[in-house]
Amino acid sequence: MRGTVLYGTRDIRFEDLPEPQVQKPTDAIIRMSATCVCGSDLWPFRGIQKIQQPMAMGHEYCGLVEEVGSAVKTVKKGQFVVGSFCISDNTCPNCQVGYQSGCQNLEFMSGAQAPYARVPFADGTLVATSELPSNDLLPSFLTTSDVLGTGWFAADAANVKPGSTAVVVGDGAVGLLGVLSAKQMGAERIIAMSRHEARQKLAKEFGATDIVTERGDEGVARIEELTKGVGADSVLECVGTQESMMQAIQCTRPGGSIGYVGVPHGVQLDGQPLFFKLVRLHGGPAPVRRYLPHLIELVLNGKINPGKVFDLTLPIDQVAEGYRAMDERRAIKALLQP
Amino acid sequence: MRGTVLYGTRDIRFEDLPEPQVQKPTDAIIRMSATCVCGSDLWPFRGIQKIQQPMAMGHEYCGLVEEVGSAVKTVKKGQFVVGSFCISDNTCPNCQVGYQSGCQNLEFMSGAQAPYARVPFADGTLVATSELPSNDLLPSFLTTSDVLGTGWFAADAANVKPGSTAVVVGDGAVGLLGVLSAKQMGAERIIAMSRHEARQKLAKEFGATDIVTERGDEGVARIEELTKGVGADSVLECVGTQESMMQAIQCTRPGGSIGYVGVPHGVQLDGQPLFFKLVRLHGGPAPVRRYLPHLIELVLNGKINPGKVFDLTLPIDQVAEGYRAMDERRAIKALLQP
Repeated sequence: MRGTVLYGTRDIRFEDLPEPQVQKPTDAIIRMSATCVCGSDLWPFRGIQKIQQPMAMGHEYCGLVEEVGSAVKTVKKGQFVVGSFCISDNTCPNCQVGYQSGCQNLEFMSGAQAPYARVPFADGTLVATSELPSNDLLPSFLTTSDVLGTGWFAADAANVKPGSTAVVVGDGAVGLLGVLSAKQMGAERIIAMSRHEARQKLAKEFGATDIVTERGDEGVARIEELTKGVGADSVLECVGTQESMMQAIQCTRPGGSIGYVGVPHGVQLDGQPLFFKLVRLHGGPAPVRRYLPHLIELVLNGKINPGKVFDLTLPIDQVAEGYRAMDERRAIKALLQP
Repeated sequence: MRGTVLYGTRDIRFEDLPEPQVQKPTDAIIRMSATCVCGSDLWPFRGIQKIQQPMAMGHEYCGLVEEVGSAVKTVKKGQFVVGSFCISDNTCPNCQVGYQSGCQNLEFMSGAQAPYARVPFADGTLVATSELPSNDLLPSFLTTSDVLGTGWFAADAANVKPGSTAVVVGDGAVGLLGVLSAKQMGAERIIAMSRHEARQKLAKEFGATDIVTERGDEGVARIEELTKGVGADSVLECVGTQESMMQAIQCTRPGGSIGYVGVPHGVQLDGQPLFFKLVRLHGGPAPVRRYLPHLIELVLNGKINPGKVFDLTLPIDQVAEGYRAMDERRAIKALLQP
C-alpha cells in the first residue's frame, strides 16, 4: 500500500509502505473509511517541531475492522469503529478515572493517513458502532477521533456549564468544535475570537453568539468590555502559542477556568501573575476515549454535525495538498479519502 | 500607639505610629485581640521581595470593633470579629462567585501587627461572632484570618474529596493547616512532606497518615511508590518556589489537581511538560471571606484546633524576635499579644 510519511520541513510524501500487520495479540488492523490532516501535524510540517527520522503521519481515523489479534474481545472483523488518537489500555488506574490520554501504557497513534493502519490496544482504544453508518456521517464520525474530542475536552476542562460565558481562542478546527462543544454543554454566551470570515460563519453555525476580531491586548480589552469588566467563566485555548495562552489567561475571570488543548510550543508561564489572576488551568492531550461513546451517539442521532469543519476533501494520494492548504490557511481541515 | 514597620532586609521595628482613624464611611477600627507573623512576611523580611518604602506589617487579625464608619451595617462597636487578609466589598461579581480575593475593589490588609488597625470595607471583609469568645479560642480564631483560610483554599483548589489521596508540599503553618483542611474534607490518605520532627508531629496530629522526608526527585519517587505508581489525586503546594512547584506537579496523577497558595517567587512553568502531565492547576490569594463563616463555626464548636500552629507567643513589642524565630525556623508561627 501507499501511506503518508514526513521527511522534513514541508517534505511530505505518499509512498510505498509495507501493509500493517497484527504484531501483538491486542492489535487490530483497520481499513480506513476516512482520515484527515490535524492542526498538530502542521508543527513538524512547518519545522517548528524537529523530527529525527521520517515519520508515518496520521492519527485521526475511522473505518472497518479488517483483522484482530487473538486477545481482542470487544471489536471484531467487519465492524465500523472509531478510535482515539491516544492509544490506551482503558484498564489502568489513570484510564479508570477517565484520563486515557495519561494511560500507563500510552502510545500515540501514527500512520493513519493511509488505507490501512494498525491500532494497538484495540479493546482499550476503539469503540464500535452498532451498525455500519451511512457515508454522509463519515466526516462527523471521523472528527470524534481527535478534533471534536479535543474541542470537547477544552470545554470540559474549562468547566463550561449551563449558563456559562465561554471564550474560544483559536479558530482552527479544534476551536470551532470547541464552540460546538460549549454550546452542547449549555453555555449561554460563546465568544469566538476569529478574523477569518469563513471561520466566523462556521463558528456562528456551531453556536457562537459573539465574534471578536481583535487579538492580544485589544482582544482582551474587547472581552472585558463584552463581559462588563468581569472576564469569562470559561476560556478554551486552542492554539498553543505564548500569545494565545496569555490572551486566554487575561480573558478569564477570577475563579474562572482555562481548558488548553493546543500543544504548547514555546509557552512559558510566570508563576506570580498566574497566581494573582486566580485562574484554573487544565489541559493536555484530550482523553477522547472517555468521550467517544457519548460523541458517537450525538453524531448518530444527528444532534451535532461536526463534520462541517472539513472544507476540503481530497483523494488520499493528494495528502500533500491537504497539508499545504491547511498550512496556508486556505482550508480549515482536509479530509482524505482512501 | 506603637506598631510594626519593615524598613529593609531584616530591619523590622516596633515604633511610634499615629493611631488609625476612620477615613471612609465603610471603614472599621479594630482593637486587636491577637495578631501574628505570616510566612509571606518573611519574603520582604529576607529581602527576596524588594520594598520601595517602609511597610506597615501585619495582615492576620481578630479583635473587638472599636469604631465604625457611618456606612457600616453588619458589624458594630464591641463585637468580636475576624477578617480576611484580603479586603473585599463582597458585592462585586467576583465576590458573588466566591472569589473575594479577586474583588474589583481588592486591597491587601496591612498594619495589623499593632494594637489597633483600620479595616476598609468592613461589611465586606469582617465576620462577627454571636458572642465574645473565650481567650483560649483566640489563637484558633486568629488562624481563620489567613493561615487556615489559605490552607483550606489549597485543599479546596486541589479538589480534595472524601476518599482522596492528598500530598502536602511545605511544612510551614499553611502546609500544616492544609493537612487539617484535607482531613476535614474527607481525604483518606494525607502525605505530608516534612523533614522537621516537631512539624511532622503536628502534621500527624492534624491528620497526616504518612510522612515523606525526601525532597525533589527523591521525594517524587517516594510519592510514586506510596501511590503505586499513580500519583496523588490532590497536591497542596504551600511554599512558592520553583522546586516546590515542580515537586507538586510531578506528584500529581493525570487529571489530578494542584492547589497552590505559596506566593510564587521565581516560578516559571514550561507549558509543554505541564500539558503532558494533564494536571489541574489552581491557586492564588485565598478567598478567605468565602470560608470564614464555616471556619468560625468549626472553631467555635471545637471541631478543629488550628491554633496549635502557634508554637511561640510573644508580647507584640517583641515582634522582631517573632520574625527572627520564624526566619530561622525555630518557630512554626509566632502569635503576638497586644
